[in-house]
Amino acid sequence: MNAITTIGTIHGVGLGPGAQDLLSVRADRLVRGARHVAYFRKAGRPGQARRIVEGMLRTDVIEIPMEYPVTTEIPVTDPRYNQCLSAFYADCTARLATLALGGADVVVLCEGDPFFYGSFMHLHSRLSGIAPVAVVPGISGMAGAWTASGAPISWGDDVLTVLMATMAEEELTRRIRDTDALVVMKIGRNLAKLRRAVIAAGRAESAWLVEHAAMPDQRVSRLVEADRVTPYFSILLIHGQGRRP
Amino acid sequence: MNAITTIGTIHGVGLGPGAQDLLSVRADRLVRGARHVAYFRKAGRPGQARRIVEGMLRTDVIEIPMEYPVTTEIPVTDPRYNQCLSAFYADCTARLATLALGGADVVVLCEGDPFFYGSFMHLHSRLSGIAPVAVVPGISGMAGAWTASGAPISWGDDVLTVLMATMAEEELTRRIRDTDALVVMKIGRNLAKLRRAVIAAGRAESAWLVEHAAMPDQRVSRLVEADRVTPYFSILLIHGQGRRP
Ligand SMILES: C[S@@+](CC[C@H](N)C(=O)[O-])C[C@H]1O[C@@H](n2cnc3c(N)ncnc32)[C@H](O)[C@@H]1O
Ligand SMILES: C[S@@+](CC[C@H](N)C(=O)[O-])C[C@H]1O[C@@H](n2cnc3c(N)ncnc32)[C@H](O)[C@@H]1O
Repeated sequence: MNAITTIGTIHGVGLGPGAQDLLSVRADRLVRGARHVAYFRKAGRPGQARRIVEGMLRTDVIEIPMEYPVTTEIPVTDPRYNQCLSAFYADCTARLATLALGGADVVVLCEGDPFFYGSFMHLHSRLSGIAPVAVVPGISGMAGAWTASGAPISWGDDVLTVLMATMAEEELTRRIRDTDALVVMKIGRNLAKLRRAVIAAGRAESAWLVEHAAMPDQRVSRLVEADRVTPYFSILLIHGQGRRP
Repeated sequence: MNAITTIGTIHGVGLGPGAQDLLSVRADRLVRGARHVAYFRKAGRPGQARRIVEGMLRTDVIEIPMEYPVTTEIPVTDPRYNQCLSAFYADCTARLATLALGGADVVVLCEGDPFFYGSFMHLHSRLSGIAPVAVVPGISGMAGAWTASGAPISWGDDVLTVLMATMAEEELTRRIRDTDALVVMKIGRNLAKLRRAVIAAGRAESAWLVEHAAMPDQRVSRLVEADRVTPYFSILLIHGQGRRP
């Protein structure tokens, strides 16, 4: 040991959709070897990313849970919503940067792929210029979902559109009508709105709902048979029907 | 050993974008353990899927290369194009089915994710009812590409559109204009057309080209600086700019 400390690296590690053996070999090595492991979660919840790696961590691991502030009372359109989240991400960044500047590598657990609608992205942009960041891509939740559905998502020249169910209903309808293959994420309490949009677009008969893809409680059902509420980890799929020689 | 043979399983195994340590743990085990390994390739070429697993296969492996028929002289719109490919896929299916019915498991190597614009899908649908098929999802080439670009592809409510550069130019333009985030695959000889469409859509300044993502010769460049020809493994990206607290 000498007095010069090498700055540590923050690794944003994609864990894939849920099953432990769907981590990449690179992610598996990083997670099993990590002394410092950070992850987002809701207050009082174990957190899905942390749950995926249960049993894989070193016995002397130092865990850094990053708990989302409770924002359910603030509408997304209220400027205070963004301020609250922004302060939270700045605080998380400071915690990880302190560790890295002290010489520690940190593995940040990310559901699916880190750069695809992921929370890690908010740390990544803030860490730029402060500490080295390395990203390990992962199998996205949607790939877990279409694999669970047992059918390919897109063929030939198919257009694939990925939407968030948080969008306005008319916009959802317009875009669902105008695509061959469809993935909709962030469904949760937007299921009723999403169902209306799919029906208005004339696609209800071909829409599937996949809950907890690649997890023990994986469930695949037709949208027309689905309940009014879906868990956070649900994805709606419409399979493309493109050219297939 | 007794006279009753158990039917083997055909595994469609996603290998991810190119790096060996981006195979999933499940894919890694299947590939290293497989006695029978099948993969598509162009006649006289090693094949990208086979190249990814170089050095990983058992010494007593039996390889089953499936060589695409040469169709470059037949226009895609000519019915003979589809007939030729269809006969080829039927032939591949028969070869794999014979192995499975003889009791052998077969691993079919797939670039990226098998159910995302993959060739394996044409075997999967034909094998249904003949032999059990299991699919292992993989990290898609596009996830390799946006990771290589160093920036997230989509934030908040961003709409992500995935297009094939084989589409008609006006249709490309319309859809590039109408999306937040964009992925275009199957570029190759369509680069000039794709560039015109991106320019017409007013998005040229934010478009990136990623060649050979997660492979040794990975290259990231701005579309406006790109050459007129790109290799088969290239992806065009426009990063979304959605809500980021
Ligand atoms: C904030 S986004 C994160 C996406 C993630 N980075 C990925 O690559 O899949 C959260 C959404 O991903 C979807 N999701 C992720 N993993 C899933 C899974 N295993 N099963 C079902 N949905 C999943 C759900 O729609 C959820 O609302
Ligand atoms: C027939 S599609 C197969 C896609 C594959 N199943 C996947 O999940 O990425 C072939 C196209 O994928 C894209 N692609 C796949 N892997 C790539 C990589 N590592 N780098 C760049 N492009 C890639 C290219 O655009 C190529 O034309």
